[in-house]
Amino acid sequence: MNHSQLFENIVAKRSFLCVGLDSEYEKIPSFLLKFKDPVFEFNKRIIDATHQYAVAIKPNIAFYECYGTRGWISLESTLKYIKRKYPDLFVIADAKRGDIGNTSKMYARAFLEKMPFDAITVAPYMGEDSVTPFLSYEGKWVALLALTSNKGADDFQYHNEDGIKLFERVLTVSQKWGSIDNLMYVVGATRAEMLKDIRRLVPDHFLLVPGVGAQGGSLADVSKYGMNSTCGLLVNSSRAIIFADDSRNFDKTAASKAEEIQKEMERYLSERNIV
Amino acid sequence: MNHSQLFENIVAKRSFLCVGLDSEYEKIPSFLLKFKDPVFEFNKRIIDATHQYAVAIKPNIAFYECYGTRGWISLESTLKYIKRKYPDLFVIADAKRGDIGNTSKMYARAFLEKMPFDAITVAPYMGEDSVTPFLSYEGKWVALLALTSNKGADDFQYHNEDGIKLFERVLTVSQKWGSIDNLMYVVGATRAEMLKDIRRLVPDHFLLVPGVGAQGGSLADVSKYGMNSTCGLLVNSSRAIIFADDSRNFDKTAASKAEEIQKEMERYLSERNIV
Repeated sequence: MNHSQLFENIVAKRSFLCVGLDSEYEKIPSFLLKFKDPVFEFNKRIIDATHQYAVAIKPNIAFYECYGTRGWISLESTLKYIKRKYPDLFVIADAKRGDIGNTSKMYARAFLEKMPFDAITVAPYMGEDSVTPFLSYEGKWVALLALTSNKGADDFQYHNEDGIKLFERVLTVSQKWGSIDNLMYVVGATRAEMLKDIRRLVPDHFLLVPGVGAQGGSLADVSKYGMNSTCGLLVNSSRAIIFADDSRNFDKTAASKAEEIQKEMERYLSERNIV
Repeated sequence: MNHSQLFENIVAKRSFLCVGLDSEYEKIPSFLLKFKDPVFEFNKRIIDATHQYAVAIKPNIAFYECYGTRGWISLESTLKYIKRKYPDLFVIADAKRGDIGNTSKMYARAFLEKMPFDAITVAPYMGEDSVTPFLSYEGKWVALLALTSNKGADDFQYHNEDGIKLFERVLTVSQKWGSIDNLMYVVGATRAEMLKDIRRLVPDHFLLVPGVGAQGGSLADVSKYGMNSTCGLLVNSSRAIIFADDSRNFDKTAASKAEEIQKEMERYLSERNIV
């Protein structure tokens, strides 16, 4: 999927919502535990219920990896299900990988080839040769960490050389590694006020924005400061959608939460004459 | 395992060698492909052949993850084998993980609980709350990336605020998150000349040093600039040991390569009166 296709999907669905599948086994409704693969069963129902309100789905790999082979099977089944049933959904492996070149190549093979994710989140600390192996797949994307949504973002990301903060350096230096068709940036919604400055550095790139919902970020602020003429935003919500209700009706509640966000997004898209 | 126990193992084996299991399926000797789990079979023979010359073993997780559930099974079998047969070996998951707190907690569970690794490599970009979940396991370690061995290390790790480079800030800020009993730092052997300055910032911590061998780092320089009174070094070699020979005698060749490094290490330990 390229930049234009992603934008077309946003216009068609009047949404830039990404549903995060942080599908913690201990938190899924208990009636699902009788199934052979409860996590897959949970994901399937969440996807069926929310896909019409979302353009992207983002499994958080840690929540699968922590169950070993069983978790890996849930992840593979989830991805297969999405690709078969909802091929227009943009599926992001939230994996935060990044290593020396020959090792990043193996992670890229894991997430972009063996498993056909459309994108993977990558940590920038190790620099160019740790990121470029993920960029060599036609139609696949890197979502590179720039300014994250957590408290620890303050520890290093603001480290300032001659007025240029580390996350700003990540944004400028990395732009030559890819294009607006295969590189987007992770910018936390909890730092929405920074989006104005960030847009000066990366006017055209998509931003993947976590932190709305459980982490406290504001969709209104993110849209106000981060939206560009092709939307340029994928805003993720995980827990606030998928764990809004732990009853048998959890999927209906998830759908209504997702719809609520979609309606708000449609308003912001309309205000900018995008839809 | 704590700092003293790791040092005791180094003294007992007269070695600070870590053998890296970057066990790429395509590179293992072809006669092993007839086994049910060729990667595990390869690892088992490498470990049997080299354990007496090494204090640590470091599976590179990417090389397992890229084969999905099959790779995960090879990894779990390898770890189980080491823990049963060579419980004194310090086993490091080279995973370069790191995410917001609730997600790092899941990665920690994957690598320090579900799989009983002794340590995991962690990327520092997301700061304190992305690292501390890995430090909450008694006797388990974080190996935090500071200055890596690859070319891309130049892109961000030297970003300089008031004379303090990013990797130096990582070394100083992170010290309060853990102790010399659960926190070590990754410093690439290809940057051995930097070890002198790094030792001023972290005089007592262990350093996990990749990049000797295939990546071109010098063991002599690493020992000269990086060794402290309790050795303070784990030097990794992967490809130069495990893929030195692709014949049926690959394990014997691996043993002799490992022994060669161990002998050199013994010399440096002896020069410092550690053994």
